[in-house]
Amino acid sequence: MSKIKSIQAYLKQEKMDLAIFSNPTTINYLTGFAGDPHERHMFLFVLADADPLLFLPALDVERARTALNFPVMGYMDSENPWNLIKKALPAKSFATIGAEFDNLNLTRFYGLKSIFNQEFTDLTPLINRLKLIKSRDEIEKMLIAGKFADKAMQIGFNHISLKNTETDIIAQIEFEMKKQGISKMSFETMVLTGNNAANPHGIPGTNRIENNALLLFDLGVETLGYTSDMTRTVAVGQPDQFKKDIYEIVLEAQLTAQDFIKPGVTASQVDAAARKVIEKAGYGEYFNHRLGHGLGMDVHEFPSIMAGNDLVIEEGMCFSVEPGIYIPGKVGVRIEDCGYVTESGFEVFTQTPKELLYFEA
Amino acid sequence: MSKIKSIQAYLKQEKMDLAIFSNPTTINYLTGFAGDPHERHMFLFVLADADPLLFLPALDVERARTALNFPVMGYMDSENPWNLIKKALPAKSFATIGAEFDNLNLTRFYGLKSIFNQEFTDLTPLINRLKLIKSRDEIEKMLIAGKFADKAMQIGFNHISLKNTETDIIAQIEFEMKKQGISKMSFETMVLTGNNAANPHGIPGTNRIENNALLLFDLGVETLGYTSDMTRTVAVGQPDQFKKDIYEIVLEAQLTAQDFIKPGVTASQVDAAARKVIEKAGYGEYFNHRLGHGLGMDVHEFPSIMAGNDLVIEEGMCFSVEPGIYIPGKVGVRIEDCGYVTESGFEVFTQTPKELLYFEA
Repeated sequence: MSKIKSIQAYLKQEKMDLAIFSNPTTINYLTGFAGDPHERHMFLFVLADADPLLFLPALDVERARTALNFPVMGYMDSENPWNLIKKALPAKSFATIGAEFDNLNLTRFYGLKSIFNQEFTDLTPLINRLKLIKSRDEIEKMLIAGKFADKAMQIGFNHISLKNTETDIIAQIEFEMKKQGISKMSFETMVLTGNNAANPHGIPGTNRIENNALLLFDLGVETLGYTSDMTRTVAVGQPDQFKKDIYEIVLEAQLTAQDFIKPGVTASQVDAAARKVIEKAGYGEYFNHRLGHGLGMDVHEFPSIMAGNDLVIEEGMCFSVEPGIYIPGKVGVRIEDCGYVTESGFEVFTQTPKELLYFEA
Repeated sequence: MSKIKSIQAYLKQEKMDLAIFSNPTTINYLTGFAGDPHERHMFLFVLADADPLLFLPALDVERARTALNFPVMGYMDSENPWNLIKKALPAKSFATIGAEFDNLNLTRFYGLKSIFNQEFTDLTPLINRLKLIKSRDEIEKMLIAGKFADKAMQIGFNHISLKNTETDIIAQIEFEMKKQGISKMSFETMVLTGNNAANPHGIPGTNRIENNALLLFDLGVETLGYTSDMTRTVAVGQPDQFKKDIYEIVLEAQLTAQDFIKPGVTASQVDAAARKVIEKAGYGEYFNHRLGHGLGMDVHEFPSIMAGNDLVIEEGMCFSVEPGIYIPGKVGVRIEDCGYVTESGFEVFTQTPKELLYFEA
């Protein structure tokens, strides 16, 4: 309940009466209850001066009641949820209401407006701010998620073979992870060979692993409610010197940015630290995405490590450092570790080596 | 472009100038381009009287340009997307604008409002209506997705063993599917043994498969952009007579509803056809969800087959028929097939037998 209490304290401070959350991840973050209503509705109502209420589909009520120590209310598909919510909440009128705009769709917004005819205030910044600084307990979970990512990467390496397709390797990685109790990868595992890696959002398929080429792995797992994310690009056989040169530029950019991170620098400075290395080498135009993204319960969170973001880096922030160079038809390299900001630097969650690794396929 | 043209025709008919789509699945449905912007923005702007415009993250531009024959515009993470959109669209003012309220969050809504200071009209009903009736081409794809679901179910059956955990079986199913080129299950595969199946949203874990109990499989795949979804409950060893009786009730409910479906009946009548069987047997309170959901590119779409939905069933609609009885601590049974409505009845996408199957574990 401590996170709920901090929301209540915020509401009082801002003279707000009610906060409404509809993002399942936020509800999990605040209450510890992991639910997924799909297209049905799940709302957590946090009142400044009374018990919160979790409103959700009837078929999840049993599990929510077991998990939570505050009121839970279910609705059947055949019931009108807005009427039920109206009846369930105290009859007082709510003068000011907050909601997460990033996660409230217009249909739900207008449904809620039909009950609470007030202006809504955006709580996205508050929630992002809360999630932004990870506790030691959260970092411990992310270290575990990172260890599993290292294991997954090793499984991928073990199955590098010219006989295998990109998809074959993905299947092996996910199979062995599932057997180790990982029920969910944090995003669709990417294994991209040769030119397929030259597209930063390339899609794995039935391409067989190419020889004398680079091979890119981007993967992560979800465990204990937290995510990991890492990328390695390795050599299969003997790629040409140009590809090796590109690799070294990306590696230097990645290490330079990691070394640069500490409390007090800004997100845009971190991005620039890596970008300058790639620009100086003449490949700036081929690094066409931000340097990194935050992660935690979601694999994409704040902070965004990019030009224009003046956010000051603080201890406890967790994010990726993932420069890349993608020259269509020629070469694609990305190297990524996620880590957390310490008192004086940056510690990564993943330990797979970063010098260019060679595999005989 | 034919679907874009039908949106344009609708806009003209409704005297609207612009439709804005932000749901990646809708954009895929309308254009054939499958993109996933994560927390970035992707909008399809369909103008009544000019070329559409796809606006998306810079790193997806290359792929979108290859796939589409109309203008595509990218933005970098460091750019203000709203300013770019404003500049990119014709300078004329848009008097009336439509958007999918179910898939437009408040942050994007207010971003768009800063450019187009008009009232927005909800296009969710239009899009749901378009998606509701599947073409023969779509049904062919769903038949293929259904065949893969049957294969996946068979793989699951092949791995029933008291030595295996729920997760072990899931890992095998997904591994063998991936090897067959299925890159994505349409939702997290469920394998639930014994009492774990008595929770309609139970979560698979490291429980070993129980003997003399029921075992529930709920799974589906995504292929060619379309989904499948099916559930089977089977016997491991010799479950007691009570469990077998519950099975027969659910099966009768499922078959009764399937037989009942044809153009002209309503969604609520279909739900009632199954529900009456279960109520008559005295277990109505343990069937606490709707009978079915539509599916297509998404595994949950319209129509919702439930009490209170007076929608008239038409040829080409596709949905699940999945009655269940869940008695906490005692027994859980669900049987599900998805199918499409024909001129005179209902044809299912999945063919795995439905009489209670027995496995020696």
